[in-house]
Amino acid sequence: MRIEVVPTVEEIRFDQISNHVVVVIDVLRASSTIVTALGNGFLSVIPVETIGQANSLRTADSVLAGERYCRKIPDFDCNNSPTEIAQKKNNGNHLILTTTNGTRAIQKAERASALLIGCFLNATACIKHALAFHLDITLYCAGTRSEFSLEDGLAAGLMIVEAQKLHTNLQVCDLGEALKASFLQLAEKLGEQLLQTTTGKRLVQHHFTSDIHYCAQVDHYNLVPFVKEKRILPHLVS
Amino acid sequence: MRIEVVPTVEEIRFDQISNHVVVVIDVLRASSTIVTALGNGFLSVIPVETIGQANSLRTADSVLAGERYCRKIPDFDCNNSPTEIAQKKNNGNHLILTTTNGTRAIQKAERASALLIGCFLNATACIKHALAFHLDITLYCAGTRSEFSLEDGLAAGLMIVEAQKLHTNLQVCDLGEALKASFLQLAEKLGEQLLQTTTGKRLVQHHFTSDIHYCAQVDHYNLVPFVKEKRILPHLVS
Repeated sequence: MRIEVVPTVEEIRFDQISNHVVVVIDVLRASSTIVTALGNGFLSVIPVETIGQANSLRTADSVLAGERYCRKIPDFDCNNSPTEIAQKKNNGNHLILTTTNGTRAIQKAERASALLIGCFLNATACIKHALAFHLDITLYCAGTRSEFSLEDGLAAGLMIVEAQKLHTNLQVCDLGEALKASFLQLAEKLGEQLLQTTTGKRLVQHHFTSDIHYCAQVDHYNLVPFVKEKRILPHLVS
Repeated sequence: MRIEVVPTVEEIRFDQISNHVVVVIDVLRASSTIVTALGNGFLSVIPVETIGQANSLRTADSVLAGERYCRKIPDFDCNNSPTEIAQKKNNGNHLILTTTNGTRAIQKAERASALLIGCFLNATACIKHALAFHLDITLYCAGTRSEFSLEDGLAAGLMIVEAQKLHTNLQVCDLGEALKASFLQLAEKLGEQLLQTTTGKRLVQHHFTSDIHYCAQVDHYNLVPFVKEKRILPHLVS
């Protein structure tokens, strides 16, 4: 088996999707919000790109979440904030989440054999579940505005570390090896490091520092969101 | 000042070239060959893409170097091998070097304010010289066949470490931060790590292990090759 890392949303090729397990990683904050929602009572998450799409899907049992320029969208129920979502009573509801790169990554990779959502919060469960398919794996970092995001790369690095504990004979691409080394170098001060990334700094400016600390927690959940017919559903890893 | 890292030859944008110092990094082996040639008596290096271009530029005082699939090109004087070139008597000669990614990177970045060639062998001299222009810097990793190469990324990481020793207030892009951490994690076993990269493994198969050990030496030269009118000339850093 082989693990490849794709550094930004634009760069994935079809040969990295077809017959592969693809893990979409968008640590700040789409992946972390999705994992948190499914870990706190939501039955499913529906990712959409635009505010109009979100509004058109609104039902009595749905909650709308999203942000533009880090601010909550007017008439939406909450921001794309995992700490805000974790505090709500969500049993039986569906989360309609507007994200840009997260949704685009899911659309681009929809022909994968399995399409999973990962971040620090579920890193070990996620890679363990990905390996169970016995297919090559693509760790697909969403990044921000066409640029590589350090936090996504570090989560990919952590998943490679955990994968190699489970399989001794994994092939890893050069970028994966670099990110594994980055994670090992920075693992002791992950929360601090996430505050210093490009997206981290922007979130701090908008008073979402608690979200960053929350998203830096490793293996807080043992659930793996997976995409099925444009919905994201939870899979529990034992 | 800001340092950005471009991970592969295709991905550079004009705003990362214009009014920037660009450092082309192709550790295995074009950059290392160029530094070694200029450190061992060659007056200049002329990079070309094709065998035909190299042959058409041949003169009495020129040496032709290059490889295809790791083998010396018929009628050429030597392989693209820094250890082979270091052993020759080269005073007063010009090296005509066929490279694919190295030459393409130089062509793509020719409108930079300054265009330098860097690798482990001259990393500190190179970044010191780059900083002296007081412009933003792009570390342009050539990679291999459109893919990121770990050895280029680690050399970029080392240059960022050295740059931050000289300037406390440098901005560094997220990929640069990741590669700095990778370098710090792997610095103690650089030679060993270079044997494990995708290009490293291919060179070992073709019995160029000594080239890899040679290219992993940090700061062996204090000269910085720079591009001027399609030739590469040496600049000595004091």
